[in-house]
Amino acid sequence: MTPYELIRAKRDGGTLAPEALRSLLADYARGDLPDYQMAALCMAVFFRGLDPTELRTWTEAMLHSGATLRRRPGAPPRVDKHSTGGVGDKVSICLAPLVAACGLTVPMVSGRGLGHTGGTLDKLGAIPGFRTHLSLAEADRVLDELGVCMLGQTDELAPADRRLYALRDVTATVDSIPLIAASILSKKLAEDLDGLVLDVKVGSGAFMPTQESAERLARTLVELSGDMGCRAVAWLTSMHAPLGRAVGNASELLEAVDVLRGQGPEDVWALTLRLGAEMLVLGQRTASVPEAERLLRTAIADGSALARFQALVRAQGGDPAVLDAPGVLLGAMETTEVTALSAGHVAEMDTLAIGLAAVVLGAGRTRSDDAIDSGVGFTVLRRPGERVERGEPIFLVHHRPGQDVAEVHRRLAAAVRVSEAIVPVPPLLLARVEASR
Amino acid sequence: MTPYELIRAKRDGGTLAPEALRSLLADYARGDLPDYQMAALCMAVFFRGLDPTELRTWTEAMLHSGATLRRRPGAPPRVDKHSTGGVGDKVSICLAPLVAACGLTVPMVSGRGLGHTGGTLDKLGAIPGFRTHLSLAEADRVLDELGVCMLGQTDELAPADRRLYALRDVTATVDSIPLIAASILSKKLAEDLDGLVLDVKVGSGAFMPTQESAERLARTLVELSGDMGCRAVAWLTSMHAPLGRAVGNASELLEAVDVLRGQGPEDVWALTLRLGAEMLVLGQRTASVPEAERLLRTAIADGSALARFQALVRAQGGDPAVLDAPGVLLGAMETTEVTALSAGHVAEMDTLAIGLAAVVLGAGRTRSDDAIDSGVGFTVLRRPGERVERGEPIFLVHHRPGQDVAEVHRRLAAAVRVSEAIVPVPPLLLARVEASR
Repeated sequence: MTPYELIRAKRDGGTLAPEALRSLLADYARGDLPDYQMAALCMAVFFRGLDPTELRTWTEAMLHSGATLRRRPGAPPRVDKHSTGGVGDKVSICLAPLVAACGLTVPMVSGRGLGHTGGTLDKLGAIPGFRTHLSLAEADRVLDELGVCMLGQTDELAPADRRLYALRDVTATVDSIPLIAASILSKKLAEDLDGLVLDVKVGSGAFMPTQESAERLARTLVELSGDMGCRAVAWLTSMHAPLGRAVGNASELLEAVDVLRGQGPEDVWALTLRLGAEMLVLGQRTASVPEAERLLRTAIADGSALARFQALVRAQGGDPAVLDAPGVLLGAMETTEVTALSAGHVAEMDTLAIGLAAVVLGAGRTRSDDAIDSGVGFTVLRRPGERVERGEPIFLVHHRPGQDVAEVHRRLAAAVRVSEAIVPVPPLLLARVEASR
Repeated sequence: MTPYELIRAKRDGGTLAPEALRSLLADYARGDLPDYQMAALCMAVFFRGLDPTELRTWTEAMLHSGATLRRRPGAPPRVDKHSTGGVGDKVSICLAPLVAACGLTVPMVSGRGLGHTGGTLDKLGAIPGFRTHLSLAEADRVLDELGVCMLGQTDELAPADRRLYALRDVTATVDSIPLIAASILSKKLAEDLDGLVLDVKVGSGAFMPTQESAERLARTLVELSGDMGCRAVAWLTSMHAPLGRAVGNASELLEAVDVLRGQGPEDVWALTLRLGAEMLVLGQRTASVPEAERLLRTAIADGSALARFQALVRAQGGDPAVLDAPGVLLGAMETTEVTALSAGHVAEMDTLAIGLAAVVLGAGRTRSDDAIDSGVGFTVLRRPGERVERGEPIFLVHHRPGQDVAEVHRRLAAAVRVSEAIVPVPPLLLARVEASR
């Protein structure tokens, strides 16, 4: 079938045969299919979707457009976590070394922050000298040595997906659940995983607008991953407020290190513990979640998780001593307060607005080539459900001396609603989704 | 709004503001909008449609990407006819000079044949020396002199529509009713018309698959044309069989000349008469269809219509004497017969298959750069509803001496069904559609 016939068949609600779809996507990966035909096909997929076989074919074609991480014979099972992105989500940084300290291999490829969400790479990038741009050969070496590595997507991994994402980004075909799922898994499964935990965010700071669409994405991801030979579990988790107290690259890194010391905020720890337990079960380190949680707590208590992260920092070019030197990480800062205009309980936060305020402050980027400031950020002093008196601070804004933060203050003040009544707060862990087949 | 925002808005079922859509299409016309964004937008339009204001904006943007024919002050009203294309449809060739002979101006821009349908330009091209590639300035001169001209689309008329059509052709976005309507009218209304008759074909040889979709296209066309200041009427007409007896470029030209002599097949004349009457009423030559038909019959009977065509042939570089010399037009031919395998009545014809058999014979083209043979073609001896005895010919195939026509015979034989019972034949003129607003 010609590209024309395939576009037309998808447009008319048909199902594309694996061989024909594979050949079309291979042409795209080689640069032999024009962008305008791919754009038309993506828009048809937006309206018509992809069935499980089409979705698997699509994802495999993107995955096989590049290389994969190498699996060392005899090494422990390989597991990873992917989050759909939120504000204040620093879980990857404590989770990867923690799970590695419990005996599994964690080859974590992460992204940079874009729009209102932060990115693991930017947080790690606050460490002077830390190299996130590893080649796959370098990543394999770190992984062999430590059982964990943390790197950015390279040109070697799923390069066709990277080109396709850029095309979708300018043709309004990003927010298609099958195309989102294919993009996530074509990159994650290039890590050659045995198990994958998916953290699908729900709420005002999440990409999926409703819990229903988040659940559809979660189900699509776990079933597609299973079809491709990687056991997967998804959790829908709350992004109704920033996760933890810290928003900002260096401060989130420090909060993740606090978790590795057993001193992090309750919600960050709860999410780390649950996702870590799923990883240990998927990686067959243990069969039970309670036993998995016991292993995780032990790795925190005996310092092995923190030691693993310190070793990782050293292996990737950083000096772990800076993790005890906030002044080095943050630089010279001033702090101002955003205070409550009335007494009551924090009822709601517009987490998207808080993430965008962080971008305005300089902690994030709206374009992929924007520079960021690792030191700036917020401390969230009051979270939804918590009591606040009139004039008490809700946020601390950490900014450079002399920086104009009027707009940031305005945005943060508008992002919080304080009510007299106590408003119920959604739980952090909303629902667990596993494959039905 | 950015192109991204407009694509997204259309994708989500929104309506695009005229100013924003106009600016986007002007960018496209200038080559400043990438094809991949236009392809995504067209696919979104395929699913979501265009409302009347969007459609008018779209059509005007395409029209204004090029020049228009010049209107001479004091000249008679300008009218034209457009057909959606069929097999054996030679009506334009007799209709244009006939209506001009009745006192209106007919600036007819036509297309070439492609796929199973023939094209007016190819039929005129059978006349040695006849120039269909006139510049607009040349067309204006012929029009001033004769009140009629017949030319092909030039690069000057709606060039952005031509580029867009090529893009739609490879992105499966051709068969969208609003985009079809915009494409037709952006070219036709560049003739600066007062009235337009649309012949929308229905049946096995038509582009619109069902009468319902043909009616939707007809309604879209007449309302859009009216919105743009050109009164329009559409007729749904039967394409359940080839029109007339002749299929093939030179032979269809000769059949059209027969009509101008008052000797053409009944169906070709009936359609010419009805469409011509609509044009005379739209052009306010007369207010009544019966009076219009009387004028048309007179122009045939007194030879003025034929004389106008002869003058047109001369003005555009041909020698009208060849219209009386079939041997010159056709060249050396042989004729073979496709006969009935059983006695009965012709029940159905697969008109698409007949058109494609003509392509195989050499009378049409599948690619726009294919060469064609003006002389080859068929005579349709039996039409649906007519009686045929076993072994009697249904088609005559006119081919070059020694040409292998086995495949053509096979296709034609398979394209006809003969039944014992008399099967009702749909009327030629199915329905009239005029603007409701």
